Amino acid sequence: MGLDIGGSKTQAVVIDDDGAVLATARTPTVPGVAGVLEVAAATVAQALAAAGIERPRAVGVGLPGVVDSEGGVVEHAVNLGIREPVGLAGLLAGRLGVAVRCENDLNAATIGARRVLVGSGDGDVDDLAFLALGTGLAAGLLLDGRLRRGSHGAAGEIGHLIHVAGGLVCPCGQRGCLERYASGSALDAAWPSADGVPAPVAVFAAAQAGDARAQQVRATFVEALAAAVRVLVLTCDVRRVVIGGGVAALGVPLLDALTAELATQAYGSAFLRSLAIADRVRLAPAGLPVGAFGAALLAPDEEV
Amino acid sequence: MGLDIGGSKTQAVVIDDDGAVLATARTPTVPGVAGVLEVAAATVAQALAAAGIERPRAVGVGLPGVVDSEGGVVEHAVNLGIREPVGLAGLLAGRLGVAVRCENDLNAATIGARRVLVGSGDGDVDDLAFLALGTGLAAGLLLDGRLRRGSHGAAGEIGHLIHVAGGLVCPCGQRGCLERYASGSALDAAWPSADGVPAPVAVFAAAQAGDARAQQVRATFVEALAAAVRVLVLTCDVRRVVIGGGVAALGVPLLDALTAELATQAYGSAFLRSLAIADRVRLAPAGLPVGAFGAALLAPDEEV
Repeated sequence: MGLDIGGSKTQAVVIDDDGAVLATARTPTVPGVAGVLEVAAATVAQALAAAGIERPRAVGVGLPGVVDSEGGVVEHAVNLGIREPVGLAGLLAGRLGVAVRCENDLNAATIGARRVLVGSGDGDVDDLAFLALGTGLAAGLLLDGRLRRGSHGAAGEIGHLIHVAGGLVCPCGQRGCLERYASGSALDAAWPSADGVPAPVAVFAAAQAGDARAQQVRATFVEALAAAVRVLVLTCDVRRVVIGGGVAALGVPLLDALTAELATQAYGSAFLRSLAIADRVRLAPAGLPVGAFGAALLAPDEEV
Repeated sequence: MGLDIGGSKTQAVVIDDDGAVLATARTPTVPGVAGVLEVAAATVAQALAAAGIERPRAVGVGLPGVVDSEGGVVEHAVNLGIREPVGLAGLLAGRLGVAVRCENDLNAATIGARRVLVGSGDGDVDDLAFLALGTGLAAGLLLDGRLRRGSHGAAGEIGHLIHVAGGLVCPCGQRGCLERYASGSALDAAWPSADGVPAPVAVFAAAQAGDARAQQVRATFVEALAAAVRVLVLTCDVRRVVIGGGVAALGVPLLDALTAELATQAYGSAFLRSLAIADRVRLAPAGLPVGAFGAALLAPDEEV
């Protein structure tokens, strides 16, 4: 099975030997090592109960931050309240009584997205980026069949490329970062929610209904998202870009707006057209927690 | 030995078994398949004569365009007047009477840059980008020890990312491409040469001498170059970025201006500072044709 331990929620997925999902579960994350372990165990138990299974063979875990998957050590997982290196794989294995492998959450989601593409009839694409469009903006990279982590664990951190010179202030300390324009938090800031409807849903609905300001907010967002996709394609030339994260729940209207924007950008450029960027984009399926699913696929083979 | 067949010149390098350079040669390229073969043979002969060697063991060749190194086929090498697929490795092998391997010129230069880093005491860095700052702007990528060519042979084409929205017109059909600001041709356009001095040299000299407009041109150029380096680091997280191409002949003043700009950009951002981007940058050595050198390292092992 797989766990995706995020800043706000911990998700679990139980899969069978063929990768079919048997059950899922979801619990609010509690920061700190003790909280993370507690919630992980509870979410695992909940998913197992739903699947009618007593004990998993092994557990793969996706977490934010810099993850040494060989050593099972996690650090800089700021959203989880973990900064200093922690041997989380060992702690979780002890707690759950099964073999555990930890991986960066974006990498786990990238592995999940690969399998989703296979299932969707896209063939076995071993070359893709998973673009996580959540609170922030970052990508996981599978290049020529290998996860690209980077020399400092920072591959795919495209959210902090400058999109607008002198633009909106970013918590990272720069101005005009792509993440300030293409992310859930960017839409939250541009379109504060009054009634609890998530900002992406509210913006797209209002734009669809003809609200001119919402259309402007949507256009700015989609243009920045297209820029992010273009960075991934022109730098890494990935075969597929899978859009995931909370904002991807917008579904087809998001995909349509993005592919239209990419087509507009390519219109005057034979070079861009030859790269067929819009054709490379896919949406992560709304129902499946891709990160936890990918973590399950990364679960160690051995039992303990 | 190695050949680097570029749009304007064909360069050859003869190396020994330890990778030491024995001789180099350089001839103007003649476009078209017949011209390319003719000039290649002449340049090889010239370099061999300079090295006092009768016959090379094998030849590696770097060329622009989409190169299938397995099949020895080259296409879209527009600067060489080759558009349709041509089995250039076979033609060259027939002409030169030795085994030939073709590779994309940026990839060859990347392999050359790796060896140069070893020689410079930087250790064996198998993770780097070679940023070619010539007429255009593009990068070769060696990630985790493997050349990253990309799904469409377009990895590293960062010159056509948008740097200035609605900016200078690019031959690619877009506006504001990074290449229009960070390249030799960008400096040619911004600082037309009156006396045959290359634009990069003229701009940096005038800026150094206090010319305010030259300082502005230099600042715009360096800022765009820093943006290119940042794209490579935040997307691929390469351990080193080696600046090569004709403009790199500027040497230390270029490196100093670039690292100062990167430091300025990182000043307010703990995130950027943690990535130590400026520390990753190196200059390709001015005296060595890195592309031809890398091509020599890629020459096939077998004799014919």
